[in-house]
Amino acid sequence: MSALVLLVVLEHAGLAVFAASGALAAVRARLDVFGVVVLGLTTALGGGIIRDVLLGVHPPTTLRGWPYLVVPTATALIVFAFHPQVARLRRAVLLADAIGLGLFTVSGTATALAHGAPGYTACLIGMTTGIGGGALRDLLLREIPLVLRREIYALASLAGAVIVWLGHQLHWPAVPVTVAGAALVVAVRLIALWRRWNAPVARGLGDLSGGSQNRE
Amino acid sequence: MSALVLLVVLEHAGLAVFAASGALAAVRARLDVFGVVVLGLTTALGGGIIRDVLLGVHPPTTLRGWPYLVVPTATALIVFAFHPQVARLRRAVLLADAIGLGLFTVSGTATALAHGAPGYTACLIGMTTGIGGGALRDLLLREIPLVLRREIYALASLAGAVIVWLGHQLHWPAVPVTVAGAALVVAVRLIALWRRWNAPVARGLGDLSGGSQNRE
Amino acid sequence: MSALVLLVVLEHAGLAVFAASGALAAVRARLDVFGVVVLGLTTALGGGIIRDVLLGVHPPTTLRGWPYLVVPTATALIVFAFHPQVARLRRAVLLADAIGLGLFTVSGTATALAHGAPGYTACLIGMTTGIGGGALRDLLLREIPLVLRREIYALASLAGAVIVWLGHQLHWPAVPVTVAGAALVVAVRLIALWRRWNAPVARGLGDLSGGSQNRE
Repeated sequence: MSALVLLVVLEHAGLAVFAASGALAAVRARLDVFGVVVLGLTTALGGGIIRDVLLGVHPPTTLRGWPYLVVPTATALIVFAFHPQVARLRRAVLLADAIGLGLFTVSGTATALAHGAPGYTACLIGMTTGIGGGALRDLLLREIPLVLRREIYALASLAGAVIVWLGHQLHWPAVPVTVAGAALVVAVRLIALWRRWNAPVARGLGDLSGGSQNRE
Repeated sequence: MSALVLLVVLEHAGLAVFAASGALAAVRARLDVFGVVVLGLTTALGGGIIRDVLLGVHPPTTLRGWPYLVVPTATALIVFAFHPQVARLRRAVLLADAIGLGLFTVSGTATALAHGAPGYTACLIGMTTGIGGGALRDLLLREIPLVLRREIYALASLAGAVIVWLGHQLHWPAVPVTVAGAALVVAVRLIALWRRWNAPVARGLGDLSGGSQNRE
Repeated sequence: MSALVLLVVLEHAGLAVFAASGALAAVRARLDVFGVVVLGLTTALGGGIIRDVLLGVHPPTTLRGWPYLVVPTATALIVFAFHPQVARLRRAVLLADAIGLGLFTVSGTATALAHGAPGYTACLIGMTTGIGGGALRDLLLREIPLVLRREIYALASLAGAVIVWLGHQLHWPAVPVTVAGAALVVAVRLIALWRRWNAPVARGLGDLSGGSQNRE
């Protein structure tokens, strides 16, 4: 399988899972079927559009062909029809988000490298691609994006991006490297969620709600 | 009237109504005169800037000439001075938003087609142009964007974009087609609001507030 | 010191203070160390990325070299370790934000002029650069951006941008002009905060909370 084909496959798999995460979050927020589809599309296409805007690809790839729209829309409709029990919605969102983070991180990094971006830039753009869609989803639902939350998130994405970049540098075969990178991201992210890996919070903090009131 | 002149006219009309919707929402959120002008400007210019970024037009058209700034600023100031009674503010926002959605959808689609984008891409960019400004306005005021809410929104925009694209394909005269497209968007959107057309919500949903707490 | 060197110096100083404002706001919102670093980075790099996207610089400058990442990350970590007392956090955020607004406004305007943008466009892009990072920070923390709040903000940025543009027009020496522009922004902004300069709010407004409920 050529690297290009691989990218397309990875990207569409990412479109599906990110669309699922967006749709599940929308169902959870009690949006109607249109809102579920729109949020599924935004979550799925957001990262890739940000990537193309940063790389100067005009118009963005994901706005060019039917499949980029059909896959997320179908996924969102399926989620709307057969979403899991409410109690499991949050877990389902986090799982789909983790897989999407992995797939978009590696496809974003590989795409940036294919466009001739230096490795350092490619890793940052890959992370932005992976994190962007989910951040957009959370912003639209007025939640603090996962990337700012407790569990390891950006680091997981960084790990996958570095793997892809290393493979590119050392001319390793693209397919296993890319798959390994995506798998690493998903694994780190899920283990972090499962083991509730938390990073320290600054000490000596007053009551937040009080602080919020001042902020308003 | 040439298609180019038409685009300019439509765009400035859209700037005015979207600025009005942003200014009204800002007044409603008790922002001061500066906030009202800034939000009016952001709502008015946001969609077009997103459109130009997606099309690769640098710098964005709306950052190039005085009128693009004068029209929304004047509109916002007029709204600030003579805004309707508070009770009618929400209705006024929705009305201005619907007209802006129509005008920016068709001007965005026509602009994309004029830049040689394929019809499919042009429709998506037109919808993004129409939806973008209002979404930015709602995000900045920490509201869930209208496009994710109950009533038909994205579909109305899609209808207008398709009309413009069809007219372009069949070489119909630009002016009536564009006006018809915008009118269709506004009509669908207002009827949806008026008749409270709602799409189904997924069943078996638990209490949202409880869900929100988990999410925080 | 050449104008180019000056731009780099100003930009990195801006990166540091904006990163500090983002990190302080993140500490205040009880985010963990990862969230603090990510928000510091987003606040610091956001404005410049928006500027480069508007100018068509691909990939954005701030994604190209280590320093752009090291300076904000180090600043965020230092803030996380030695942040001031909670009671002073809000004041610290506002102070760092004001300095960052000044530095990014002038560097953004100068960069746009260096890219051949007309003065009018350069001023708008400079303001967007200065306001963008902080707006992103507030959006991610679900706060209404400072630029929409009570005290003079966009006008302070505009003043600095105009100074830089005038200096460019009249061929004044770049260094003093740019420094003066940044100082003017910071001065206006801090005086506005200190004297609580407020602009009028539209009269005849009902109770906001009631309005909010309708909006939900």
